[in-house]
Amino acid sequence: MELNGVEVEDTFAEAFPIKIARVLITGATKRWALVAAQEATGFGTSVIMCPAEAGIEKAVNGDETPDGRPGAYIQICTFGYKALEEQLLKRLGQCVLTAPTAAMWNGLPNAEKQFDTGFKLKFFGDGFESEANIGGRKAYKIPMMQGEFIAEHGVGAQDGIAGGNFFIMADNQMAALAAAENAVDAIAQLEGTITPFPGGIVASGSKVGFTNYKFMKATTNEKFSPSLKAKIKDTKVPADVNAIYEIVINGLSVEAISKSMKAGIEAAVKIPGVKKISAGNYGGTLGPYKFNLNELF
Amino acid sequence: MELNGVEVEDTFAEAFPIKIARVLITGATKRWALVAAQEATGFGTSVIMCPAEAGIEKAVNGDETPDGRPGAYIQICTFGYKALEEQLLKRLGQCVLTAPTAAMWNGLPNAEKQFDTGFKLKFFGDGFESEANIGGRKAYKIPMMQGEFIAEHGVGAQDGIAGGNFFIMADNQMAALAAAENAVDAIAQLEGTITPFPGGIVASGSKVGFTNYKFMKATTNEKFSPSLKAKIKDTKVPADVNAIYEIVINGLSVEAISKSMKAGIEAAVKIPGVKKISAGNYGGTLGPYKFNLNELF
Amino acid sequence: MELNGVEVEDTFAEAFPIKIARVLITGATKRWALVAAQEATGFGTSVIMCPAEAGIEKAVNGDETPDGRPGAYIQICTFGYKALEEQLLKRLGQCVLTAPTAAMWNGLPNAEKQFDTGFKLKFFGDGFESEANIGGRKAYKIPMMQGEFIAEHGVGAQDGIAGGNFFIMADNQMAALAAAENAVDAIAQLEGTITPFPGGIVASGSKVGFTNYKFMKATTNEKFSPSLKAKIKDTKVPADVNAIYEIVINGLSVEAISKSMKAGIEAAVKIPGVKKISAGNYGGTLGPYKFNLNELF
Amino acid sequence: MELNGVEVEDTFAEAFPIKIARVLITGATKRWALVAAQEATGFGTSVIMCPAEAGIEKAVNGDETPDGRPGAYIQICTFGYKALEEQLLKRLGQCVLTAPTAAMWNGLPNAEKQFDTGFKLKFFGDGFESEANIGGRKAYKIPMMQGEFIAEHGVGAQDGIAGGNFFIMADNQMAALAAAENAVDAIAQLEGTITPFPGGIVASGSKVGFTNYKFMKATTNEKFSPSLKAKIKDTKVPADVNAIYEIVINGLSVEAISKSMKAGIEAAVKIPGVKKISAGNYGGTLGPYKFNLNELF
Repeated sequence: MELNGVEVEDTFAEAFPIKIARVLITGATKRWALVAAQEATGFGTSVIMCPAEAGIEKAVNGDETPDGRPGAYIQICTFGYKALEEQLLKRLGQCVLTAPTAAMWNGLPNAEKQFDTGFKLKFFGDGFESEANIGGRKAYKIPMMQGEFIAEHGVGAQDGIAGGNFFIMADNQMAALAAAENAVDAIAQLEGTITPFPGGIVASGSKVGFTNYKFMKATTNEKFSPSLKAKIKDTKVPADVNAIYEIVINGLSVEAISKSMKAGIEAAVKIPGVKKISAGNYGGTLGPYKFNLNELF
Repeated sequence: MELNGVEVEDTFAEAFPIKIARVLITGATKRWALVAAQEATGFGTSVIMCPAEAGIEKAVNGDETPDGRPGAYIQICTFGYKALEEQLLKRLGQCVLTAPTAAMWNGLPNAEKQFDTGFKLKFFGDGFESEANIGGRKAYKIPMMQGEFIAEHGVGAQDGIAGGNFFIMADNQMAALAAAENAVDAIAQLEGTITPFPGGIVASGSKVGFTNYKFMKATTNEKFSPSLKAKIKDTKVPADVNAIYEIVINGLSVEAISKSMKAGIEAAVKIPGVKKISAGNYGGTLGPYKFNLNELF
Repeated sequence: MELNGVEVEDTFAEAFPIKIARVLITGATKRWALVAAQEATGFGTSVIMCPAEAGIEKAVNGDETPDGRPGAYIQICTFGYKALEEQLLKRLGQCVLTAPTAAMWNGLPNAEKQFDTGFKLKFFGDGFESEANIGGRKAYKIPMMQGEFIAEHGVGAQDGIAGGNFFIMADNQMAALAAAENAVDAIAQLEGTITPFPGGIVASGSKVGFTNYKFMKATTNEKFSPSLKAKIKDTKVPADVNAIYEIVINGLSVEAISKSMKAGIEAAVKIPGVKKISAGNYGGTLGPYKFNLNELF
Repeated sequence: MELNGVEVEDTFAEAFPIKIARVLITGATKRWALVAAQEATGFGTSVIMCPAEAGIEKAVNGDETPDGRPGAYIQICTFGYKALEEQLLKRLGQCVLTAPTAAMWNGLPNAEKQFDTGFKLKFFGDGFESEANIGGRKAYKIPMMQGEFIAEHGVGAQDGIAGGNFFIMADNQMAALAAAENAVDAIAQLEGTITPFPGGIVASGSKVGFTNYKFMKATTNEKFSPSLKAKIKDTKVPADVNAIYEIVINGLSVEAISKSMKAGIEAAVKIPGVKKISAGNYGGTLGPYKFNLNELF
């Protein structure tokens, strides 16, 4: 099919299960809430070598938060709940508790799985902390140099999906990049998903395994590498394409990821120079979730 | 002494040795260089529970980089070289190699200690990569979806210093915070130092050990907690102070940290409501480096 | 009444009629749409000495615009339609037609009053322009160096209101400022209003006329000047207040301004150090619109 | 000649004399200084229909300003000193005096031509203002709601140059735009020049006069319009070029403009897809200043 004159290939994105914790970080202003959220989700692109995949889901106004201050939802993702609990403790303890004006709230208060991360962090208060009910949430007030840090008792987690994705193929790298930025901006308005890579964008979409280096688990996807299109016989790079960016999306549900893929693709095809939209899959061997691009619209 | 009418306490900041690797990240534009630098230095406030302390040192123009593109120096810090090498591989491999338009260069090419991180990352190229000399640097070109990733062969590291610091004490939390922002902005112009906490600012300056909770290694510094000043008998919070932010500075040398502390304090005292500048020390038990505040000026 | 422990004075903001044109500017990305919107609304704080009052109303996603690209609504306000038409021609012709990737669309397509600004701008095309129907709008495609500029034929305007306002009084300037920033951020999410001053904030709330200088039409409001509170006998600055910022709001309707005043005040009172909310009025002599603060909630 | 593999045409930019006033705006933080600077320089792209050409020259640290706070130099340009004085009064009075935490300082204290704009603005103080010497500058303290506004007595002005320029020609609009952004970023580091158009970039480079519409003084430059290259017989758009952006530079001297043109071109040619650099001239009829592109290097 075509969208704004751009071919959307009849293929699918292949995704896999992951565990996701969701935290709401508030701050004195929107800007300071985002400072904490950004530090807490850094070094969090791929579980291949990062301790977690993490990202900012969506900024929210004060009328949607327990303390009435502006904030942002973040997601932290790992393969199991044990690693997830450790990442929550470390990332919230080191990057949110320490951040100017930040407070932390349960982003999935109705989830079955609940970690008591806020309870654990209260021990930083060394006995000077107190319990409080704020906006209907059980929380702790921890005295500190700046004043107080407010931490809700629990943080909820649930089964989620990692690796939703699509490829943006353009005749020029800057066109592909502007399209990718546009896609990430559009997805950032939506609930339930994150784009964990730098700026939400993957420059180095990979393949599982190797062609030449037997000791590698993931390597460059040479069939989708524009600089190799004349050198590889089974290249998948169209003749008029010189750059490809991938948008990887993690999220709480199939619906959330589908909605974000749709919004991202619609935003990307508006940029002049975008030639084709495709997606990454591994013959169905990587994960049980399949997102058919043409069924999104 | 006084600076702009603000008392600078006659005390010292206590700091300790750490190992620091320095990387120059370039990008198509300044904005994209900083996107990569930010992801690579996230989740990097304190080695207490982060895998490294990390931060952006300074943005540089294209006339100061091997590929002529705008960039930013980052520092990554751990207690030993083994952990540092692992962090370099993970952070550069996952957050810079994957980042749109980023390239990586040795930020300490003359250091005695050199890691071959660029060489290790080239294997992502799966045999399709090639060697190149760019701006006098031995580098690898790795074909990927966006085009190519350029990685210099080595990354230098050296002995550095962590925990340079000062406290900004103000009559109001927002005054302390604006002063802290001002200090961080001033330090960001200088070479050789980073401020690894969120937005460069520490909300939760801590003490070594505990008063009440025997199982904790670092807890809130209750003597510097404004909300406890009426409840603690040996409080160090002046009567007119209601909020304190700490600026923690890591850096390549005593000189670099001294210069950054000076610039940061001079910037902080310009904000109306700042009452006093102090610093954190632990009776000389934490580290061998002492930065006397009054000797900075 | 009190809000979050802050007194909201039982007073009213006094506002007056103005003419408002509304334009939707789209761009390749959200960032470039905002670049054009910002230039077009600059030098536009007060009609006392600016050629217009102008501001960015609200950013919108691509699914809300005729060309499917991200954008921002702006408002341009003058006392009469003649001046408004001239300002539209100049500001759109010089700051949007010239801006990278920008396009302009009618922001009030159903208003009775319509200017043919797009039609007039098409003559820049020097005969090379063409007519097009895009998203149901009659528009012109003007060939230019970057490619093409798209301008919708008309720009609608209507009776609006200027000078909706409230005062944020705090014990410290930085607290007042953070509260003002918070208020502006909250208002920026809402439809139908702008905050035309720098960063949305007025540092220099004025009185009509003079006390000492007979030749001045508007001068500093000494009764609300904290530095004069000990020197003026009828000061209105509370003893614990040391800084006041005013938020001035223009908008399309009484309802839109009321909603923005409410959201702004709710956001402002969350900042520690805010002591009181008041509003500016001139005994009812300036304008027919009165916004009672206590009736907003 | 070639630069980074990109042809730099052997042609010249044609520029003309203008009067330039230079003001230093400081703020509590860099961010707030820039808010004032941006509002004061808005609606200031071209004197064809804007009341002035204006832009931010360069941000400076507190160690370079009279009050020790961070700031930014701005330039305001008109054809004569009478119009310039009026623009200074209006833009500084409405967009800097009103801006949170801003102060204004003479940016050309040694120029022969001095306006007493600060003196005129002091009358806003309505008799409550006072004189002060700050950092060696004669200034006024005007009490206002936020606290005080500080205005230096005078603002200097001098003969300057407008219309320094170069064209960035690329195979794709987003490549041309990224190159233009890169150029503007590089120029923003340099002293003495501004790029007055939106985001520093001109999308609509024009010709003097008309081809078809006799009543127009400036119209689209059809010979440089990519969408017309197949329709116009004497097109100057190379076959592989699909988008052109112009960078227009005003500045205090031939040297400053030459340096900025050089830095901007060097930054632009680093972006993949840039094919050629050219410049705008009008056969030497527009102005006495000629900047030969090949002589810059």
